[in-house]
Amino acid sequence: MAALDATLARIDQNLDQALDRLFALIAIPSISTDPAYAQDCVHAAEWLVGELRGLGFDTTLRPTPGHPMVVAKARTGRPATGQKSAPHLLFYGHYDVQPPDPLDLWQTPPFAPRLAESASGKQIIGRGVADDKGQLMTFIEACRAYQETAGALPCDITILLEGEEESGSTSLPAFLAQNRDELAADLVLVCDTSMWDKKTPAITTMLRGLVLEEVVIQAADRDLHSGMFGGAAVNPIHVLAKIIADLHDDTHRITLPGFYDGVAELPKDVAEQWQHLPQEGHDFLGDVGLSQPAGEKGRSILEMIWARPTCDVNGIIGGYTGKGSKTVLPAKASAKFSFRLVGKQDPEKIAASFRSFVTAHLPPDCHATFISHGASPAHQLPFSSDALTRARAALKEEWGTETVLAGCGGSIPIVGAFKQDLGMDALMIGFGLDDDRIHSPNEKYELSSFHKGARSWVRVLAALAG
Amino acid sequence: MAALDATLARIDQNLDQALDRLFALIAIPSISTDPAYAQDCVHAAEWLVGELRGLGFDTTLRPTPGHPMVVAKARTGRPATGQKSAPHLLFYGHYDVQPPDPLDLWQTPPFAPRLAESASGKQIIGRGVADDKGQLMTFIEACRAYQETAGALPCDITILLEGEEESGSTSLPAFLAQNRDELAADLVLVCDTSMWDKKTPAITTMLRGLVLEEVVIQAADRDLHSGMFGGAAVNPIHVLAKIIADLHDDTHRITLPGFYDGVAELPKDVAEQWQHLPQEGHDFLGDVGLSQPAGEKGRSILEMIWARPTCDVNGIIGGYTGKGSKTVLPAKASAKFSFRLVGKQDPEKIAASFRSFVTAHLPPDCHATFISHGASPAHQLPFSSDALTRARAALKEEWGTETVLAGCGGSIPIVGAFKQDLGMDALMIGFGLDDDRIHSPNEKYELSSFHKGARSWVRVLAALAG
Repeated sequence: MAALDATLARIDQNLDQALDRLFALIAIPSISTDPAYAQDCVHAAEWLVGELRGLGFDTTLRPTPGHPMVVAKARTGRPATGQKSAPHLLFYGHYDVQPPDPLDLWQTPPFAPRLAESASGKQIIGRGVADDKGQLMTFIEACRAYQETAGALPCDITILLEGEEESGSTSLPAFLAQNRDELAADLVLVCDTSMWDKKTPAITTMLRGLVLEEVVIQAADRDLHSGMFGGAAVNPIHVLAKIIADLHDDTHRITLPGFYDGVAELPKDVAEQWQHLPQEGHDFLGDVGLSQPAGEKGRSILEMIWARPTCDVNGIIGGYTGKGSKTVLPAKASAKFSFRLVGKQDPEKIAASFRSFVTAHLPPDCHATFISHGASPAHQLPFSSDALTRARAALKEEWGTETVLAGCGGSIPIVGAFKQDLGMDALMIGFGLDDDRIHSPNEKYELSSFHKGARSWVRVLAALAG
Repeated sequence: MAALDATLARIDQNLDQALDRLFALIAIPSISTDPAYAQDCVHAAEWLVGELRGLGFDTTLRPTPGHPMVVAKARTGRPATGQKSAPHLLFYGHYDVQPPDPLDLWQTPPFAPRLAESASGKQIIGRGVADDKGQLMTFIEACRAYQETAGALPCDITILLEGEEESGSTSLPAFLAQNRDELAADLVLVCDTSMWDKKTPAITTMLRGLVLEEVVIQAADRDLHSGMFGGAAVNPIHVLAKIIADLHDDTHRITLPGFYDGVAELPKDVAEQWQHLPQEGHDFLGDVGLSQPAGEKGRSILEMIWARPTCDVNGIIGGYTGKGSKTVLPAKASAKFSFRLVGKQDPEKIAASFRSFVTAHLPPDCHATFISHGASPAHQLPFSSDALTRARAALKEEWGTETVLAGCGGSIPIVGAFKQDLGMDALMIGFGLDDDRIHSPNEKYELSSFHKGARSWVRVLAALAG
């Protein structure tokens, strides 16, 4: 433990210089979506190459059809033995940022980072500080502390930093496929998530999957006059509305046959933890003008958004939608459906079940056309995972409070790519907060997130290696 | 009967000159919706004033904020007696026409009327010939024949011709209100409807009313991310879809409380007539790519569109409706509803019932805003009406086949205005056909409609006066 304490102490000693390094990275406007900033993206990648080479990583700048990747490898050099060796870890982060618009809402320039005082302590302000430059630097600073105190990392580490996360990670899947052997590891660490609150660390163990289906229902071969035909001609808006209504039962469960196959109940301890989390700053519904959870009867709100699958219509259109009225019976109506998946739900089976359901609900003279907008499975790090147990304990050690095993209602596409292309589970640990204003003006990252985040990685690496 | 035969014979003798007169009227491009043709509208009105004065009518051109009205009065001069006198009739027609676009689809210029041969006989071609210049001229030619043979009309007649029917009859309601005493009569004759087919005359005895209601359902105070909130936040598209679905039961009856109050069953003889009408040219659904009536179980298609009320969504919109997908839970969704009314249904009560129904179906956190786009009752000429019985027999005499007592699924707003403002029922007799291409290129009117239409009015006037 003396060695670990020395490494942790080095994080504390390095804090001012670490901030200087982070500020230097934030000052590079690496906006990936705007071609005018392509050279800045290269500049940010090169800056990271320099940093990582300085820490002894075998580092390369790797061109892609878009912005370059940074790949850095550090090997402990320990000979392979028959014994269970320390794991090989792949750390993922991204150096690109969102555009800073609207600029006039920034209190200071977005790419001139600064420390600010707030009621709850010091905050770092700047575009990309929470998403994801500050977060990825917590890991690099942890590596630095190991190099500077122990002279080596506690296990083999590969770092992959991309520059297109904010513009769709377009080049990533092909890059993973083309460099499968080089990037293969036992576990991928992703630092792009949040804590439960400023004092409570979290590991995101589940991400919901997604099935996106659009359906167009066609009835007559033209729009009809609702006076001449109303009452006799089938109305595709009604047909679509009935299908939407029939997709949920009175308890708000989804009625698609086989939909809940692969959906497991939460382990008892996790369910209990979720019931007793501190509520401050977590009025999910009140913050958006709602008061009552509208999901499955008998489920808590966290279950609804983290651990239960959904069916939602994201858009619907049919007939006349301008001002005033028009007495039309439209020829067609369409809707975009999304299904959020959990556990082992099979996206293909759910898409097929949905299409069968719609087709079976069509009255005579109606025809449905389907368009898929994508399908991806949920990600679930097994609750029994040894790495999860170790990391959870390490974070508790640093923060002094139990680590929340969180879910995330949305998808993180790259996590799916690591699983699908490289067969790796992801351990998602991040130190962001819900109020970090990512993608918005005056993005911030708590200084405590940056400082204790780096210390957290020191402990997590020790725990995973140990 | 000798006098009637002479008047009918005069129609036959006058046919060529009557066509010349009709052609002269059609040649005036009285397009009411386009301000560039305002002077042509005045010209058409003045032309009609000249015609009617020539027939001895006390005729005036009456300015309005829009295009002028023509009001022509002919009084028999018979002293009022204690006996039941001949009725005073108000004839309504309109001299304005739709724009002829698209011009390139006309085989000959729209305002250069001509006679054309067709497989079924001669047709008159030109913009407005069926809607409504040819139709209104059948009545004026009937008046001419009376004047030329009997020297007088069989009863007091007022003729009202407007020039804004194709642009919303904007000035009509105020004009009726301001000239209530002058226009008061026992019955209004409207010649803007169709026959059942080329050989079968029809009197339209019922027009459906209309209630137009738009509803906006608001849930959260902003659009939400469907990953972050999906499963917990109420989706207003689902709420709206459920309401739409619940508005009909499994037999396609409308579930609004009190909705069918005032809806009577058809008289047995009318129901039987509808069941045995010639079907040629009446494949309503097949013509638009449908095969099966989708209305109330156990009702014929003519009942569905003529004699039964409806509830239809004319438009719906919510969430993302562009290309591809967007994982949004929208803050609101909206739909435009129309209710077609029959019999004595009360528009205000139905609008109120609808609003109560929607409000009662709202889950927590949802709010509905309503916008009325108008409400008007159905028009029903009583089946027991003496005028209807007489006119029906007169038409049968002319055409040699039973007169159909038809309905019309749509509204004719001016009929409602005559009822509401002047307390008059309308006897709707017209000689158009469903294939007349009104509002479309190459609009036509059968020569037989024009010729036998004028003869029909001679008979109907005699029957009503007798």
